[in-house]
Amino acid sequence: MSKTDQDKKLVEAITSMDEDFAQWYTDVVKKAELVDYSGVKGCMVIKPAGYALWENVQKELDARFKATGVLNVYMPLFIPESLLQKEKDHVEGFAPEVAWVTQGGLEPLEERMCVRPTSETLFCDFYARDIQSYRDLPRLYNQWCSVVRWEKTTRPFLRSREFLWQEGHTAHGDAAGAQERTILMLNVYGDFVEEFLAIPVVRGQKTDKEKFAGALETYTIEAMMHDGKALQSGTSHNFGDGFARAFGIQFTDKDNTLKHVHQTSWGLSTRIIGAIIMVHGDDSGLVLPPRVAPTQVVVVPIQQKKEGVLEEAARIKDALERKGIRVKLDDTDKSPGWKFAEHEMRGVPLRVELGPKDIAAGQAMLVRRDDHAKSAAGLDCLADTVAGLLEDIQKDMFDRARAHLESHIYEATDWGTFSNLVADRPGFVKAMWCGSALCEEKIKEETGATSRCIPFEAGHLSDTCVCCGKKAQKMVIWGKAY
Amino acid sequence: MSKTDQDKKLVEAITSMDEDFAQWYTDVVKKAELVDYSGVKGCMVIKPAGYALWENVQKELDARFKATGVLNVYMPLFIPESLLQKEKDHVEGFAPEVAWVTQGGLEPLEERMCVRPTSETLFCDFYARDIQSYRDLPRLYNQWCSVVRWEKTTRPFLRSREFLWQEGHTAHGDAAGAQERTILMLNVYGDFVEEFLAIPVVRGQKTDKEKFAGALETYTIEAMMHDGKALQSGTSHNFGDGFARAFGIQFTDKDNTLKHVHQTSWGLSTRIIGAIIMVHGDDSGLVLPPRVAPTQVVVVPIQQKKEGVLEEAARIKDALERKGIRVKLDDTDKSPGWKFAEHEMRGVPLRVELGPKDIAAGQAMLVRRDDHAKSAAGLDCLADTVAGLLEDIQKDMFDRARAHLESHIYEATDWGTFSNLVADRPGFVKAMWCGSALCEEKIKEETGATSRCIPFEAGHLSDTCVCCGKKAQKMVIWGKAY
Repeated sequence: MSKTDQDKKLVEAITSMDEDFAQWYTDVVKKAELVDYSGVKGCMVIKPAGYALWENVQKELDARFKATGVLNVYMPLFIPESLLQKEKDHVEGFAPEVAWVTQGGLEPLEERMCVRPTSETLFCDFYARDIQSYRDLPRLYNQWCSVVRWEKTTRPFLRSREFLWQEGHTAHGDAAGAQERTILMLNVYGDFVEEFLAIPVVRGQKTDKEKFAGALETYTIEAMMHDGKALQSGTSHNFGDGFARAFGIQFTDKDNTLKHVHQTSWGLSTRIIGAIIMVHGDDSGLVLPPRVAPTQVVVVPIQQKKEGVLEEAARIKDALERKGIRVKLDDTDKSPGWKFAEHEMRGVPLRVELGPKDIAAGQAMLVRRDDHAKSAAGLDCLADTVAGLLEDIQKDMFDRARAHLESHIYEATDWGTFSNLVADRPGFVKAMWCGSALCEEKIKEETGATSRCIPFEAGHLSDTCVCCGKKAQKMVIWGKAY
Repeated sequence: MSKTDQDKKLVEAITSMDEDFAQWYTDVVKKAELVDYSGVKGCMVIKPAGYALWENVQKELDARFKATGVLNVYMPLFIPESLLQKEKDHVEGFAPEVAWVTQGGLEPLEERMCVRPTSETLFCDFYARDIQSYRDLPRLYNQWCSVVRWEKTTRPFLRSREFLWQEGHTAHGDAAGAQERTILMLNVYGDFVEEFLAIPVVRGQKTDKEKFAGALETYTIEAMMHDGKALQSGTSHNFGDGFARAFGIQFTDKDNTLKHVHQTSWGLSTRIIGAIIMVHGDDSGLVLPPRVAPTQVVVVPIQQKKEGVLEEAARIKDALERKGIRVKLDDTDKSPGWKFAEHEMRGVPLRVELGPKDIAAGQAMLVRRDDHAKSAAGLDCLADTVAGLLEDIQKDMFDRARAHLESHIYEATDWGTFSNLVADRPGFVKAMWCGSALCEEKIKEETGATSRCIPFEAGHLSDTCVCCGKKAQKMVIWGKAY
């Protein structure tokens, strides 16, 4: 097989996203070497390229948490059945989808335990012992861990039986403190996803039907994938004092009376990697925003055996590294075309091409991954040019994703328009809702769309529910979702 | 209760280490707020002060791994029983102490799965698919995760049913590559523990009896706790091609023949936090080496309500922060004595005291946690003085721990001396060994000491085994261990 055939083969191996988006997604996660299927059904192996993305998400998000006073802790992996059952709504929500440990060592357990699907019950059990006085509040704890939910159908990153996430759990002296923290963390997520991952989101509140098991209120950031479907990308819950009453988490307040704490929890998972793929990717593979990209720039020498080429390429690599840019030099013996296709597949934001002619002209060629734009840049100030270009790419990727989001949000005030929009136009539909779960059910059954959220900036479209025609309560964003 | 009574109470609450070392340890982990017991038997809650130590360990160790080319990945939490059973020695070693998941959601599983006690089998299953050619080698992967071993008796950090660790798993094209990596990683551990945690270690090889289930050879770093007992602090295993044969991990070599890979694995866990406590701690609580300490310096204002005191204390905090020092200002309304005791308990390496008289004299008082030495330092160059002092503390703590280790290693060439030393002198005993597991068993049964390792710098004490008197093969370091 000739080099050119190899190049072709690599590129041809991906399904076009317009042809079959689901297959395109599967091809990208595999060809960009983000994950591998494991011998354990529904669980994935996260490979170095995938895990490096998660490490960058962790590092940035963790710093943003800590800037708001959050401290990290670690709770046990297991939840005894009796503990899971303490809060009624919570156990109903999670018990059907947990994995049960029934034997430890050679002995059957006296009480079976589940592998945590989320850790509210463990944090509550701990806080009941840990919190005594108003001086102990607020408690702002978070943990990075894996959780298990026994899903029937699974897809890498989007839905798997085990996934990685962080879960924050806070306790406050009053309802206002809990509500403030719930919104604060939702905005930490929203800002992080927009600024760092270049993914615009709609921020809002979940309807009662869609809220977290045991929560008073759930808030969400919803992103729109390239195919117009929604991906719930992070959620923040206000529990009020429901868990505190179930678990007996009380403190002596300044007025010497015993009160229940008010709690929140909030989580963001490896699912967000699915969003990065499906918002930014194209038919050549992954496209990574520079801020989260493990490798921001790849230097590809052309005719690298010619005198001086590899030396100059190495000089460029060093100069970019000194500037704090994450750069790799690909000096393997593959053909340049093969290298181009490979690094495009992996989503490296910028490629620097450098051959004897470029060196003679005192320049290098810069090729952007996001829009394939190619430009020459002088070698004398290349690091500055590259740094500026990476910022441009980050901004342009966000702007393009925002334009895509905004141009795919429709409005409907009657059922015919609504159901046609959901059926024919990929995207979200804004429509008024009476507040009844029956209408939500009907909309889901008849169109496949679910209520994504009641956006913070809601607006008012009409006075009647798009489904039943009764008096409208709220404006909801509807859409098909992952 | 008066302030003075409170101060006293806090200090009195710890058992003296000479009186009851085990109780002292339990008191310190609790009073320094490192862990809490959880509602799950044998599992611990790692609190912020404990987790911050682990985060610092992770950050430093991860950087050292990456500097040797290691990449991070993530493997599933579960191992199907059939996968665990593929390597004979390995399953015999681990099957008796794993937790079994038998139900997922509402359905019993077709095949039960254990929660990973270690992930050799998962990495092997993956490598068998992932590795095709010599071009894929070496594979140098690591993961940070939690593992579960169903221990009967547990103690925080030292032995718990779940613990956090990293496990590196590498695959190489030949035996030499695997052996080189095994020793390299052992030395990464040794250097990290000595340089960052100020804990001197003995580096060496485990006897066959003490090696990892499935390994060809196991290497270890052994630290000596304050009570003279050993703590195995990190291990590195060479598997040869045993796992590769069991799992069919083959590659096409340059000569176009199919060969089995050679593998290694290496791990270090939250157990190391137990070592930090038991090597450096004293009767006032935890003593943290500056490099790993989450808070390196605490500024305690004296008569803080007097004009200018808090302002100057804040200026000092800012100056230290600008110098890159992790500093806290304790301006709570507790008494200075209470604050001193509290931060001593938590092991903060250096305390800066500052009152009106100090300010008038243009100085602050610096009090070292490790040796309680107190010195005055000018305010004009305080940050430099503090930075220098932190380095001194790090070095002095290592030197003291090394002196303790060296002065508690004894030698024995006959059984009487050996058994008396083990019985009467806390510490390690060097003695020659014939190489037979029977002698190891006998030594353990009759003295309680186990073979810690065959040190790299072994030396020769005599020609006969200290136990059976037959021809000696190797010099072994023996000791009681955690």
